[in-house]
Amino acid sequence: MSKPDYIEIVEEVFNKTRNKPTQEFKYLGKHIVRWDAISKVTGRPLFTADMINLFKNAVYVYSVRAKYAHAKIKKIDYSEALKYPGVLKVITAEDVPGINDVGYVLPDQPLLADRKVRYIGDTVALVVAESLENAREAGELVNVDYEPLPVYTDVLQVIDLNGLKEKEHVLIHDERGSDVLSRYKIRVGDVEKAFKEASVIVENEYRTPMQEHAYLEPEAAIAIPEPDGGVTIYAKTQCPFDTRRAVSNVLGLPFNMVRVIAPALGGGFGGAEDVGNEIAAKAALAALALKRTAVVLHTREESIIGHTKRHPMVAKYRHAASRDGTILAVDADIVLDTGAYASLGPFVGWRATVHSTGPYKVKNARVDLAVVYTNRIPAGAFRGFGNPQVTFAVERQMDLLAEELGMDPVEFRLKNILRNGDRTVHGQLLDHGVGLEEAIKRALEISGWHEKRKLYSAIKGPVRRGIGIALMYHGNSIGAEGADFSTVSLIIQRDGSIIFRTGLTDMGQGSLQGLVNIAAEILGVPPSYFKIELADTASTPDAGPTVASRSTAMGGNATLVAAYKIRQRLNKLAAEMLGCASPEDVVIEAPKVYCKGEPDHYITWKELVEQTFWKGIPIQEFGYYRAPPAEWHEETGTGQPYFTYTFGAVVSDVEVDVETGLTKVVEATVVYDIGRVVNRTGAEHHGVGGYIQGMGYALMEDTVHSENGHVYTTSFSTYHIPTGLDIPERIHVDFVEAGFIRGPFGAKGLGEPSIVAKAPSIVNAIGHALGSKQANRLLNRIPATPDFVREAVKKAGLSR
Amino acid sequence: MSKPDYIEIVEEVFNKTRNKPTQEFKYLGKHIVRWDAISKVTGRPLFTADMINLFKNAVYVYSVRAKYAHAKIKKIDYSEALKYPGVLKVITAEDVPGINDVGYVLPDQPLLADRKVRYIGDTVALVVAESLENAREAGELVNVDYEPLPVYTDVLQVIDLNGLKEKEHVLIHDERGSDVLSRYKIRVGDVEKAFKEASVIVENEYRTPMQEHAYLEPEAAIAIPEPDGGVTIYAKTQCPFDTRRAVSNVLGLPFNMVRVIAPALGGGFGGAEDVGNEIAAKAALAALALKRTAVVLHTREESIIGHTKRHPMVAKYRHAASRDGTILAVDADIVLDTGAYASLGPFVGWRATVHSTGPYKVKNARVDLAVVYTNRIPAGAFRGFGNPQVTFAVERQMDLLAEELGMDPVEFRLKNILRNGDRTVHGQLLDHGVGLEEAIKRALEISGWHEKRKLYSAIKGPVRRGIGIALMYHGNSIGAEGADFSTVSLIIQRDGSIIFRTGLTDMGQGSLQGLVNIAAEILGVPPSYFKIELADTASTPDAGPTVASRSTAMGGNATLVAAYKIRQRLNKLAAEMLGCASPEDVVIEAPKVYCKGEPDHYITWKELVEQTFWKGIPIQEFGYYRAPPAEWHEETGTGQPYFTYTFGAVVSDVEVDVETGLTKVVEATVVYDIGRVVNRTGAEHHGVGGYIQGMGYALMEDTVHSENGHVYTTSFSTYHIPTGLDIPERIHVDFVEAGFIRGPFGAKGLGEPSIVAKAPSIVNAIGHALGSKQANRLLNRIPATPDFVREAVKKAGLSR
Repeated sequence: MSKPDYIEIVEEVFNKTRNKPTQEFKYLGKHIVRWDAISKVTGRPLFTADMINLFKNAVYVYSVRAKYAHAKIKKIDYSEALKYPGVLKVITAEDVPGINDVGYVLPDQPLLADRKVRYIGDTVALVVAESLENAREAGELVNVDYEPLPVYTDVLQVIDLNGLKEKEHVLIHDERGSDVLSRYKIRVGDVEKAFKEASVIVENEYRTPMQEHAYLEPEAAIAIPEPDGGVTIYAKTQCPFDTRRAVSNVLGLPFNMVRVIAPALGGGFGGAEDVGNEIAAKAALAALALKRTAVVLHTREESIIGHTKRHPMVAKYRHAASRDGTILAVDADIVLDTGAYASLGPFVGWRATVHSTGPYKVKNARVDLAVVYTNRIPAGAFRGFGNPQVTFAVERQMDLLAEELGMDPVEFRLKNILRNGDRTVHGQLLDHGVGLEEAIKRALEISGWHEKRKLYSAIKGPVRRGIGIALMYHGNSIGAEGADFSTVSLIIQRDGSIIFRTGLTDMGQGSLQGLVNIAAEILGVPPSYFKIELADTASTPDAGPTVASRSTAMGGNATLVAAYKIRQRLNKLAAEMLGCASPEDVVIEAPKVYCKGEPDHYITWKELVEQTFWKGIPIQEFGYYRAPPAEWHEETGTGQPYFTYTFGAVVSDVEVDVETGLTKVVEATVVYDIGRVVNRTGAEHHGVGGYIQGMGYALMEDTVHSENGHVYTTSFSTYHIPTGLDIPERIHVDFVEAGFIRGPFGAKGLGEPSIVAKAPSIVNAIGHALGSKQANRLLNRIPATPDFVREAVKKAGLSR
Repeated sequence: MSKPDYIEIVEEVFNKTRNKPTQEFKYLGKHIVRWDAISKVTGRPLFTADMINLFKNAVYVYSVRAKYAHAKIKKIDYSEALKYPGVLKVITAEDVPGINDVGYVLPDQPLLADRKVRYIGDTVALVVAESLENAREAGELVNVDYEPLPVYTDVLQVIDLNGLKEKEHVLIHDERGSDVLSRYKIRVGDVEKAFKEASVIVENEYRTPMQEHAYLEPEAAIAIPEPDGGVTIYAKTQCPFDTRRAVSNVLGLPFNMVRVIAPALGGGFGGAEDVGNEIAAKAALAALALKRTAVVLHTREESIIGHTKRHPMVAKYRHAASRDGTILAVDADIVLDTGAYASLGPFVGWRATVHSTGPYKVKNARVDLAVVYTNRIPAGAFRGFGNPQVTFAVERQMDLLAEELGMDPVEFRLKNILRNGDRTVHGQLLDHGVGLEEAIKRALEISGWHEKRKLYSAIKGPVRRGIGIALMYHGNSIGAEGADFSTVSLIIQRDGSIIFRTGLTDMGQGSLQGLVNIAAEILGVPPSYFKIELADTASTPDAGPTVASRSTAMGGNATLVAAYKIRQRLNKLAAEMLGCASPEDVVIEAPKVYCKGEPDHYITWKELVEQTFWKGIPIQEFGYYRAPPAEWHEETGTGQPYFTYTFGAVVSDVEVDVETGLTKVVEATVVYDIGRVVNRTGAEHHGVGGYIQGMGYALMEDTVHSENGHVYTTSFSTYHIPTGLDIPERIHVDFVEAGFIRGPFGAKGLGEPSIVAKAPSIVNAIGHALGSKQANRLLNRIPATPDFVREAVKKAGLSR
């Protein structure tokens, strides 16, 4: 069968432009101010919670949460709540008209708890009232008769790290017969033999925390009942089509009767997936029950307790290397704690498995990974999606191996990294641009690695300096997780202005400006001609979810295809109007359109557009792209899990106070191979933002549960994220553009990669600062809080 | 150059189905309940004015209108109004940021009057206040210093019917140098010679009234300022893309910064064109000035005074015929009164000219038509668009000619009507299905014409009976008026439900159900799978205006093209999945999909749709269609003005009280050739509704101005429209399906045709009832009110 046209178009554009330097592009890769910059910095109302002020006569929906982290529900009595002033209705599981489930990838999560509660954020009832205050107060009057069950908040209460065997315990998901959600493995080569032949073996255990997305924006949803029995919902959601599916299931309506619109998002990071579905479904339930606009608006506490987090990891890694510094084998057992519900846990576990040996040539590997339920807040999607966890372990191991071998950590890594023509551990041939080596070299140069590495080693005293490196790769898009497609809608208006929209959301990452730049470059019109409309399930086709660093590659390809098709038609018409020798000779440099070499003999862009209306030439397209099917063999962990990978090198330069244990990042350098930069300003800022979030992960962030499953860190006074004072003065961001034939102009994703490998680069730097082999080995968990670092200093017997 | 794919697809589907009887279609032409029937009959809030209740914190905009119908503005003083409680702002012409004009086809109409006012509805200032009451009351305090000018409310004060020469007068549009807006003509054959050779000549003058659209819904617009400086507008408008253009001009913004959404319309009939633009622009001005949601809501009085009407006509017709009843020549002078502003007057004048000789073979014609300004309410678009006016004159002439010749009016008409292979007066070859003769025959049969015609002639006494016929044809779509394209958006959702949307609006006519039926027939899924979303300029491409009976033909073709393209891809995939011999063998009868002849070996529609997501097959399309270019020679009135025509025959059966002059229609029969019926229920109801509106035009409706330009008929107690008691007990509606190769499945439009020729059929019936040649000739104007009929009875010396 011949290639679909969209595959051919993307390849053709890449081949024509692969050697074109950035300066020869007109808009692509330039510093373009994003479309919403002005309205955001001037505080115009853009977010869902702002929009509550637009709608009159709304009812408010409050979620009554569980009192226990694990308990059977014997009875719910809300008769007193119903009598409370302003209360209109109380909704429980039995009022759900459709399927009472909002599980993201499997149906294990009731929207409203029925038989039991499994974590402290489970909703047992919705109180609907004339005001949020009334609803909240009445919520106190909902009486639930519980039978408490044992609570598990450490994943090792449920599973043994040695051999990953499930332990005897009271099942959280008794209906499933096991609390091990999923298992994955890699079986490549002969690990036993490799370890036997090894000169150096390094083994260590690692732990990573339950990170909170800590987006700026409050969680909010507004549901408006429609006259035809459907519902329109404005909600904080990063995946409006997934939210629609969830709401449709809950309401028992077909997809086209549920319209989900995603206003501007004040951050998502994966956290606005499940919770978007939940709040939308809750608002919709109330709206249809009362035939009034219904609002859900969470406090920060409700947000922290109620939305999914980053999976904590416990892992045991063993690496074998030869004397010359060649990695011989990787042997690992990894447990991810998915909390009370699966959410995206199965996919997070798979991605962690895929990336579990890092961006290195590994010929022998045994990896076992289990995703396990506990009674903590559910863990789900979070920027990096399992990769930051395993990369922390892998990159710590790399430093320990280098140390054992007496090699510079960079030298050791360069010996093992993936290059063009290599195969990944899964056997996937990297036959296209792999810019990791160049990224490393650039990062070394910018950071002054070699000088500092030497210089810092000499510093003694209470305040030490260290510099550390970590590498990463990250599979773009969904890969073998699902159907990997995207779409956009591109409509040129009769006055020459353009409307661009897609079901992909811009959560603040600025990805849509990148897509606009792609369309602008293809069409030859400035990005300022474009208006980006909100993601709206009733206005565009399903674009797939906004996850997995797929917007630029997948959405970008869909955009490129749409723009290309329109451009072809415009070229033909313009050639006729201008008398160009061929359509290929048409130059569009809006507002001018002319034949190549004749810039003074021109028509205007507006004139060209107007003529399409008279000549019967459509100037609108649904752009569509589907990635080539991925491939994964469950039994061996081999195949082609992703169609491409982003690569990166991260250098962190830290100051460590050995008395207080406090680490301060002084300077950082990140260099990524993203194939081709589509918007330089956006990419640079992304590099900065990702570093900071990764630094919080490395040094301070964790969602702390008590033994009975209550959460201590429900505000930003207890859950610490980096503030202005924590941020390094300089974060250098640079890019390698190695180009990928199936990316738009060769581009790949940067969303998730930008957080991966930050933590190990920082902890590696701490290790360097402490200058002790013993201390270095003790740095096996994040966050590397002052307490933890001081403890390592103490245990290693370091003094100033 | 080869045909565009959309032309070929439409022709291919027509050729494949041209001989397929209705009963072999699955959905097309069946009695399908329209999608919004339930919500409308149960009174769910659907209309713009309902939506005002959704939005909080709105400001209200009141239009201060002119005190004189023609005056210079010397000064506007609104200082007192500003002091009134709740008043936030007063907006006048000088506050308009863009172009202060809302002229539809030419810029002659300020949104806010500047130098002068030209009719009583001109807006001189907008008062914006916290409530509509406050705004209205403060409006009284806006002081305008006027210099009154002479007022012209009869078009013959401005132009002479003999020779159409402009008279000396104080120019209303002094900036244009003339108050004759446009002139058109037809010059075919040798009229003088024909008249010389004629056996019978009939000459008469005709007048038709200024009809009001009298839609049910109040005029309302809601404008919401957007964070990026743009604006979103919900408005009663039948042409959202035209409204967007008008608002963009007024605000000085590009099209993509103005979003216009048209909620359900409670009738349009052409009246919701200009006024939609005006109210949207007024609301948008206030919204952007105050950065708050702004509402315009008209009373019925404001509506009647402020929106355009049907052009009154004054005409002098002369027909020549041979003894055997062949029409030899037509000679006519026609004046249309366009009121204070052009609105769509130039196009109405053109369409009137095109249709000015009726659906007959006319080889010699001289027609001159002028569109002239007066100080009446502007006349603009109204169902029929110039055709009902000229058809009244032509069809009265036909009856008078038949009477002169001593022929039965049907016999006379049959001798002259257009048939397949004939040429219109403009020289256009009708090479495709012309079902007029069949329509006449069916109308005669259903109505019992021959028996009644004889029987009624015998009735004497105070209450007479009469039966009359009139014929019509009506050019579909815009023709030579403009760029004649349309678009739709068809998106199959992942659960198999479908979203359909278009920039065409459904004003109550049900046209969108017809489009859905077309898509359903092509795809093989029931119409209930479709959801129709509102017309929204930010969600679909420009679909062209919803006017000129173009929805079914143009929008239907765009729909057909979209569905066809998707169906081709689905066939290919299904053939692979099922193992059918060829894609053409795939039968889709949702929920089943199978190979022809193997209905028991099937997959489901949902399974097929789900597979498209895995196989990378797009299931969304922007459907696009552009009609073949029309052609019009200004100097001769020849060419191909429209790509096709709808034909029809109307029989009215009336009772006339010769003492009171009261006419009551007892029974009516309408038969149209609309090529192919797409929704039988909709078409039948349309036939009924059109007849009733035409009956109001014939018997009771007129917008009466005083000599100084004030309007007497500002409510339904003075402006009479048919009530339940006026409606005939039986209105028979039937269709001929002669098929048109460039219509979807052969279909043509019915929107406007359904009102054309009602008035002459009724007045011809009155003539028959009166049974007096002299009286018959006196029946030369509508509305044929009791006064007018009694006067004719009196003048003709009739007695019971």
